Amino acid sequence: MKRIAIDMDEVIADTLTTHVEWYNRDYQDELKLSELEGITLLQARPDVRSAIESYYEREDFFRNIKVMEHSQEVLRELSEHYEIYITTAAMEVPASFRAKYEWLLEHFDFLNEMNFVFCGDKSIIRADYLVDDNVKQLRAFKGQGILFTAPRNVHEIDYVRVNNWLEARAWFMAQLHQDQQQREEQNEEQNKECCAVVEEG
Amino acid sequence: MKRIAIDMDEVIADTLTTHVEWYNRDYQDELKLSELEGITLLQARPDVRSAIESYYEREDFFRNIKVMEHSQEVLRELSEHYEIYITTAAMEVPASFRAKYEWLLEHFDFLNEMNFVFCGDKSIIRADYLVDDNVKQLRAFKGQGILFTAPRNVHEIDYVRVNNWLEARAWFMAQLHQDQQQREEQNEEQNKECCAVVEEG
Repeated sequence: MKRIAIDMDEVIADTLTTHVEWYNRDYQDELKLSELEGITLLQARPDVRSAIESYYEREDFFRNIKVMEHSQEVLRELSEHYEIYITTAAMEVPASFRAKYEWLLEHFDFLNEMNFVFCGDKSIIRADYLVDDNVKQLRAFKGQGILFTAPRNVHEIDYVRVNNWLEARAWFMAQLHQDQQQREEQNEEQNKECCAVVEEG
Repeated sequence: MKRIAIDMDEVIADTLTTHVEWYNRDYQDELKLSELEGITLLQARPDVRSAIESYYEREDFFRNIKVMEHSQEVLRELSEHYEIYITTAAMEVPASFRAKYEWLLEHFDFLNEMNFVFCGDKSIIRADYLVDDNVKQLRAFKGQGILFTAPRNVHEIDYVRVNNWLEARAWFMAQLHQDQQQREEQNEEQNKECCAVVEEG
């Protein structure tokens, strides 16, 4: 089985939507997701940096983030064909450790918690694929990177891109099909060589 | 630079000594480390399982574990020649996340926290070496495993063994020397080939 490493924030956790909603509610702003194309929330509101960053200190924020649409059903299906690991750069936000762990147990209870990884730099991850919204992490990773669309990365062109989990499913199922075909062709090739040896003998 | 992944408990954190001390103090027992050869603490005191396991729920326990002798000076020195990552199976003990992170910041402040990894199964770790006391994790790991002696593993014979951090330093410095020699020999070989081509020409 090939192995897929999957990021949390902006990939299976809809962190930005939750962040904008909480910020708008608490600071009476009307920021829209559509204003964040190619930039971060901090770049959109540099004058309220401490307000924006305050949520990274709050366990209740990480515990209550929305689940990314279709991520549960697709990961459940993919986990029948691939080894699934959740790999999140939690070292950047130490307040999130416990909340992220509990959030995963609640929303992805079909995954083995021994496959959860809290790291910093993802060059340490050994997997065939990494699905991430962060180009810096995809660059550090040694396998094939798959860019999961998030507002800040819409202008990136260097990676295979999936816009949502339905596209991710299609890509990984096609990949599976392609891998199977390759294996079958290799088997046929080996069988032919065996036959040739037998006939020669 | 080659990369070394290093386990925490029983490798840079003297968890067993601290565990036995706290248990003896709290439960008026006189268990000695020398009684734990080839077995775990739970196997030595199966009748008080809940007492033994209660410490895994306590943040103050993980925050106050002793540092393994010589681990700080040796890791500081090795970090000049190798990339050092701390890779701990923290998913087995979720209460330990924050305490382990703070413990690392306190005792190994010369390491980059982006190189801390909390995982379950260490097959996910991409590194050249893994120093661990747990044979199960060394088996899962894809690079070269180095067994760090702990009472429970004294009868294991399948891995390169280091008994303490001074031995670990000697092993890794010898390895470094060997890698350098190999590179020099390869360079000489390439130079000879170049000269031969020039002379032929």
